[in-house]
Amino acid sequence: MLDPKTRRPISAEDLSRLFSQACSEQELNTVDRWIDIPEPVREKYSYWRCTPLVRAYGLEEALSTPAHIYFKNESVSPIGSHKLNSAIPQAYYCSREGVTNITTETGAGQWGAALSYAAGVFGLECAVYQVKISYEQKPYRRSIMQVFGAQVTPSPSMSTRAGKDIITACPNHQGSLGTAISEAVELATTTPNCKYTLGSVMNHVALHQTVIGLEAEKQMALAGEYPDIVIACFGGGSNFGGIVFPFLRHTLADGVRTRYIAAEPASCPKLTRGEFRYDYGDASGYTPLIPMYTLGHDFQPANIHAGGLRYHGAGSIVSELLKQELIEAVDIRQLDSFRAGCLFAKTEGIIPAPESCHAIAAAVDEALKCRENHEKKVILFNLSGHGLVDMSAYDQYISGSMNNTGE
Amino acid sequence: MLDPKTRRPISAEDLSRLFSQACSEQELNTVDRWIDIPEPVREKYSYWRCTPLVRAYGLEEALSTPAHIYFKNESVSPIGSHKLNSAIPQAYYCSREGVTNITTETGAGQWGAALSYAAGVFGLECAVYQVKISYEQKPYRRSIMQVFGAQVTPSPSMSTRAGKDIITACPNHQGSLGTAISEAVELATTTPNCKYTLGSVMNHVALHQTVIGLEAEKQMALAGEYPDIVIACFGGGSNFGGIVFPFLRHTLADGVRTRYIAAEPASCPKLTRGEFRYDYGDASGYTPLIPMYTLGHDFQPANIHAGGLRYHGAGSIVSELLKQELIEAVDIRQLDSFRAGCLFAKTEGIIPAPESCHAIAAAVDEALKCRENHEKKVILFNLSGHGLVDMSAYDQYISGSMNNTGE
Repeated sequence: MLDPKTRRPISAEDLSRLFSQACSEQELNTVDRWIDIPEPVREKYSYWRCTPLVRAYGLEEALSTPAHIYFKNESVSPIGSHKLNSAIPQAYYCSREGVTNITTETGAGQWGAALSYAAGVFGLECAVYQVKISYEQKPYRRSIMQVFGAQVTPSPSMSTRAGKDIITACPNHQGSLGTAISEAVELATTTPNCKYTLGSVMNHVALHQTVIGLEAEKQMALAGEYPDIVIACFGGGSNFGGIVFPFLRHTLADGVRTRYIAAEPASCPKLTRGEFRYDYGDASGYTPLIPMYTLGHDFQPANIHAGGLRYHGAGSIVSELLKQELIEAVDIRQLDSFRAGCLFAKTEGIIPAPESCHAIAAAVDEALKCRENHEKKVILFNLSGHGLVDMSAYDQYISGSMNNTGE
Repeated sequence: MLDPKTRRPISAEDLSRLFSQACSEQELNTVDRWIDIPEPVREKYSYWRCTPLVRAYGLEEALSTPAHIYFKNESVSPIGSHKLNSAIPQAYYCSREGVTNITTETGAGQWGAALSYAAGVFGLECAVYQVKISYEQKPYRRSIMQVFGAQVTPSPSMSTRAGKDIITACPNHQGSLGTAISEAVELATTTPNCKYTLGSVMNHVALHQTVIGLEAEKQMALAGEYPDIVIACFGGGSNFGGIVFPFLRHTLADGVRTRYIAAEPASCPKLTRGEFRYDYGDASGYTPLIPMYTLGHDFQPANIHAGGLRYHGAGSIVSELLKQELIEAVDIRQLDSFRAGCLFAKTEGIIPAPESCHAIAAAVDEALKCRENHEKKVILFNLSGHGLVDMSAYDQYISGSMNNTGE
């Protein structure tokens, strides 16, 4: 990563002006193969972890596929998604370092809800900038953050210089993860004793999320299976890295042949149609420059319901893995994602988050290929969260008024 | 129970005109101490059961109480509430008996969502009558039922004679569980191969729900504790009976001194201010006459957010237990329930259903008494469901526009 001003490689000290010291060090750590989960974090994890690994018998039957389909059910966390896996350690590290206030951006609101709860757990104040279109489309996510005691502001807002600049240039800007990051970063850098946190893209977030894959690996072993294909939806890479990296190490070290598929929305296709280059993590150029597959930091994605996947870039590790063809990417259209999501709901009883529907759609595609080719592959996907706060999206799908590119 | 026409004790054969044969027999079974859970039901239960028993350390700390507070977390079911515990066996029995269509009423939509999913699991068509005020206030619950493939109609409707009569008498009727039951019962009795199902009140429903208390008993033993107080919210008695009855058997058989507290809304106080007598289960007098604490079958409850607690009567076993003073009841005002619910959300990370907030409020009251009296009691309550589809209610609470008696 490069400093946006000097264009020189950034140090952990540079990063720690924005992030907690511990996360800054984790971000650039290339020495330690394993980093222990602190005991207070493990204690909080124990509220809902280990999460279930489920064999999707109902889905298999509906697809008449010889494939074995497993999913890791991250929807059972208090917040309903995998985001809490990183919110808890990030809030913990901040509190251990004497920080009193934390801030962040959120799209669909899942990361914001996770951080709001985690902040409360460790006695921190929390301010969340929520992408304006999600703030308006998903008022319930805002309420969830407020119940947990967070202050929630729609972005772009007039409360920061970055927000004012964006609104001046584009008065009807509906917001993006990029605009919200700009505002949160500005708040963190101009408020004493306040740190910024991120729910995806960064290496330390993917690190925290690897608890998903590490658990899944042991659970698959209990089931006497090993995945031929591992699938996750893709926004910035946190749930993808979380489930994929622990399996990928066996590919890198022992040559185990597993396919890893990132499922991104067709309307925000950074992996399948983006460019690999240095780019900013936010819309206004406040963050370090990151080597990534990107659609450009000023990309304005369509208002698809999968708010968590509306981000212009991909985390650097995932980007490098894609460049080296160690992982694959597919793009999923909105209607196809909800069709797969409804099938999953009926057959497995869990209404998936619009983001997770992308992983399900990719898993269904692979399972159907297995049916065609009479192959008994083992498919594992990550159910990153449930969609109970996204029922208006399902309403639109059921009523036939949904399209593929936005609303 | 008495036949509404002949006023003679009803038989299982009578009941089976409405309910599945198996449930009809369970309803009146006074012989078998234990009734096995069928293997196909156990297999479906295994998707989410056993549910966690959680020590609420966060809540204890916030209350500075010496009490140990445990809750049984039924919110982790696919549907987000305990209702699936009875929906699965009821749908299974119907399918085993060759029934093709099932119907029911729902208030907040939790029972309807559970039955919609369960029907799909066993290949049945499902029609749900939802209390009109809930249908309008909680459109997301309707969407959930529709995603699972059910046909949902707001009650009172013009699709049944009972509905037409109610609308004729009271054109702006907002609906109640009573009106919805009348309509569903009429549909079941006038449609070939169609059975009615109920999510509460009946003995067979409480029987299915005892899986909650039986698990909790074993889990408490693992924790090396036994409850001094068992608490559940109270609508018709299903989650209350589910957690209480297994513990109560030790009180009845071995004299174990445990208090059992039913927490009902102050605006629908059948246990604390109702009358013990024979009454109908529905608004129009279609169901058998049940000996129950009741506010009268034509009682129109206030539009509180805890839609699942807006029922005029209590199940007969619970009613008899209250009459014999083996259990207690408290009434909770709406604002107090949400205050307790928000405290629980912040300290335990789970946003509780408005119904469950009543149990939490009662548990908090008991925990505060323990603080006052320096007593280290063990309190167990049932978290019957999560409130993620009820965020508009929390919005109202947070914004200060909620009152105690309705909206």
